[in-house]
Amino acid sequence: MSNQLIKPQTLKGFRDSLPELMMAREHLMEIARKVYRSYGYSPIDTPALEYSEILLGKGSDETDKQLFRFQDQGDRDVAMRFDLTVPFARFAAQHIGKLGTPFKRYHIGSVWRAEKPQKGRYREFIQCDFDTIGTDANASDIETLLVIHDLMEAIGFNKFAIRINHRQLLNGLLEKLGVLEHSVGILRALDKLLKIGREKVIAEMVDAVGITPEQAAGVLDFAQLEGSSEEILAQVEELLDGNEPGLLGVSKLRELFESCRTAGIADERIVLDVSIARGLDYYTGTIYETFLTDLPGIGSVCSGGRYDNLAGLFTKEKLPGVGASLGLDRLLAAMEELGLIDTATTPAQVFIAMFDQERLGDYLKVGRELRAAGIANEVYPQARKVQKQFQYANRKGFRAVVIAGSDEFEKGVWTVKDLEKGEQAEVPAAELHSYLHRLLSN
Amino acid sequence: MSNQLIKPQTLKGFRDSLPELMMAREHLMEIARKVYRSYGYSPIDTPALEYSEILLGKGSDETDKQLFRFQDQGDRDVAMRFDLTVPFARFAAQHIGKLGTPFKRYHIGSVWRAEKPQKGRYREFIQCDFDTIGTDANASDIETLLVIHDLMEAIGFNKFAIRINHRQLLNGLLEKLGVLEHSVGILRALDKLLKIGREKVIAEMVDAVGITPEQAAGVLDFAQLEGSSEEILAQVEELLDGNEPGLLGVSKLRELFESCRTAGIADERIVLDVSIARGLDYYTGTIYETFLTDLPGIGSVCSGGRYDNLAGLFTKEKLPGVGASLGLDRLLAAMEELGLIDTATTPAQVFIAMFDQERLGDYLKVGRELRAAGIANEVYPQARKVQKQFQYANRKGFRAVVIAGSDEFEKGVWTVKDLEKGEQAEVPAAELHSYLHRLLSN
Repeated sequence: MSNQLIKPQTLKGFRDSLPELMMAREHLMEIARKVYRSYGYSPIDTPALEYSEILLGKGSDETDKQLFRFQDQGDRDVAMRFDLTVPFARFAAQHIGKLGTPFKRYHIGSVWRAEKPQKGRYREFIQCDFDTIGTDANASDIETLLVIHDLMEAIGFNKFAIRINHRQLLNGLLEKLGVLEHSVGILRALDKLLKIGREKVIAEMVDAVGITPEQAAGVLDFAQLEGSSEEILAQVEELLDGNEPGLLGVSKLRELFESCRTAGIADERIVLDVSIARGLDYYTGTIYETFLTDLPGIGSVCSGGRYDNLAGLFTKEKLPGVGASLGLDRLLAAMEELGLIDTATTPAQVFIAMFDQERLGDYLKVGRELRAAGIANEVYPQARKVQKQFQYANRKGFRAVVIAGSDEFEKGVWTVKDLEKGEQAEVPAAELHSYLHRLLSN
Repeated sequence: MSNQLIKPQTLKGFRDSLPELMMAREHLMEIARKVYRSYGYSPIDTPALEYSEILLGKGSDETDKQLFRFQDQGDRDVAMRFDLTVPFARFAAQHIGKLGTPFKRYHIGSVWRAEKPQKGRYREFIQCDFDTIGTDANASDIETLLVIHDLMEAIGFNKFAIRINHRQLLNGLLEKLGVLEHSVGILRALDKLLKIGREKVIAEMVDAVGITPEQAAGVLDFAQLEGSSEEILAQVEELLDGNEPGLLGVSKLRELFESCRTAGIADERIVLDVSIARGLDYYTGTIYETFLTDLPGIGSVCSGGRYDNLAGLFTKEKLPGVGASLGLDRLLAAMEELGLIDTATTPAQVFIAMFDQERLGDYLKVGRELRAAGIANEVYPQARKVQKQFQYANRKGFRAVVIAGSDEFEKGVWTVKDLEKGEQAEVPAAELHSYLHRLLSN
């Protein structure tokens, strides 16, 4: 051991998760796991490290540059995963024969990108994906929407909208207008609609992309269709008349809306938005984005879509699929902003003060009894001044303190103090856990 | 996209976790979280990557060589964590002022070591640690034992023993025998007792370590003390007469046994073993090892101990602590051997067959209703042949299949088939969830 201290610090762009953040994150992950499982998605995991050739060239040039990549002890060219999709493609190619199709998986894990650090964005973050592969059934697209819906509700959001589109609608329109080959430029311009307005978008389409003003207006008319989902779909159907892929997209969306209504999803929770073109190169069918009504500024907190083939780079077996990803860290930031994150730094709610060191076994015993009754609790390890112990309990955010000294032990009672309400009561030992259950449920 | 397929493979020493393994692992992690939380331990996380100087020289030379270490994009010398203890020391030095003491944390996370791959040992594995720092109170040592005990019970092990020792006992004896400076060699020889027997251990102590036959016999007599914990402690007390640190160790162990008895732990679950010398350089007080009675060969599945100072390399603040680590992967291997791992590859228990594609919304609706009643289920996405769907359900390990065609929908009934018992029944729609609850609880 040297005498010089090593400076305790995390790397640039990385951070520690302290209890407050970590409890909120564990809570979200637990909800995600529970919802995914309730639909029959199974958990999987893949290694943090992969052969670099598995990961390179799968995202953008930017992604390649952001890879944490190195030679390992065996001179292998390796890299840390930058998302969970590429490893899943490799995983599927490798194991699908054993797993069979359809295969539904969820995967919650850390990914690493050497991005320029920004407020709220780190070089290590958690992804929380779920996908159904090996089927092109529309039922899986609809189920994906149901999962997103149930996730949002389970997290505690009441006001949210899942915005839906189908790639074939816009594709069909561009085809009918004769401008399909310009789709990248058109969609890039269309993406700016909210920011710069209709006229400037049309100007960009004409000047930069090179389509006619009439064609550009046609795209804008389509993107700006108004009305209920049924009304918009009816108009889209007319506009796409004769374009089979487009009309198939319409009928799939119609089935989605009808099935969701039958399944009990409130109408306002699903919004048809024919202008969403998310992940142009990747998604080929249904597209999902999820917005919190009270926090539209944070963007979509759960996004995804249908793709034609997951693992084409690794296997000749065609694996169509559909899925989405919960933006865990973005959601945590949102919950912080909405005041939905508990400030307590202890997962236990009851604090057992240590008054009489000689009674250590008795304190530990009551702790175990309360745990057996489902009440998480912490026994303070030393008979320090009660005031000190109360300070500790307050700082950590315990809800109640339980105290007994020799008097109480003789009488067979505990003094219970509700730290939130400031009330105090003497409770017979035999009634302690039912008393605390009542206190904690208020 | 190139035409040449990339071979889908994991790196040497790494592996994918398929649903069967992953569900068992998630189950264990959930139990660990629940037990840790029930005692007031809070979750934390630290980055996978650290400055190399944080990690180097903290384990052994071997550990340094096994580090996955590289230069990042900013030419920083970085490495992937090889355990959770060193990052916790760095974390504690950095945040303890904000967190306050005592601080109880658990940390479940992957660690990476470029070890020679062996059967059941991988270069990426999960550690599952809990510690209390900032206090030297014996209550925390006792609580550590209670946590281990409750963990084992919660996992479902009935037959296990936590073997306990205190470093000061053996230290005190070596001091009394005048051979304390030879402790490393003596303990290394003592470690072989089970393998090579008393005579050969004594020979090694005399020949290789250089103590007298009488001194060696004294060590062996001590290590081989027999009787109940109280009886052994009484003998140790006599042997350590006059050695204060040793006698303090005895009184702490005595308090541990007494408190555990008061707290309701069965006597046979805690075994005093004065020969355990685990982690010689690191642990300074109580030492824990946990053995499954039916599988002694797999070694300790939960080990730990008390240390004098966690973060001495990073801060001048002295942080004594005590904790242990659940050997998650070892435990999974054990559970596999004992047949405790479920072979189902789906987290859902009920399979809803799709008979009539037109009724998609109705199938999705009943799926949601069952979920709301706490019954995880999967709706098959296509109206394929029922036999195919049954094959799928059987292969995944669903417990029950629920079917309805147009006849059933008209009558308002579902056909439920219990795949385990082979029984089939027609159930009114309104009674479906209570019927399934009964079926699943059998």
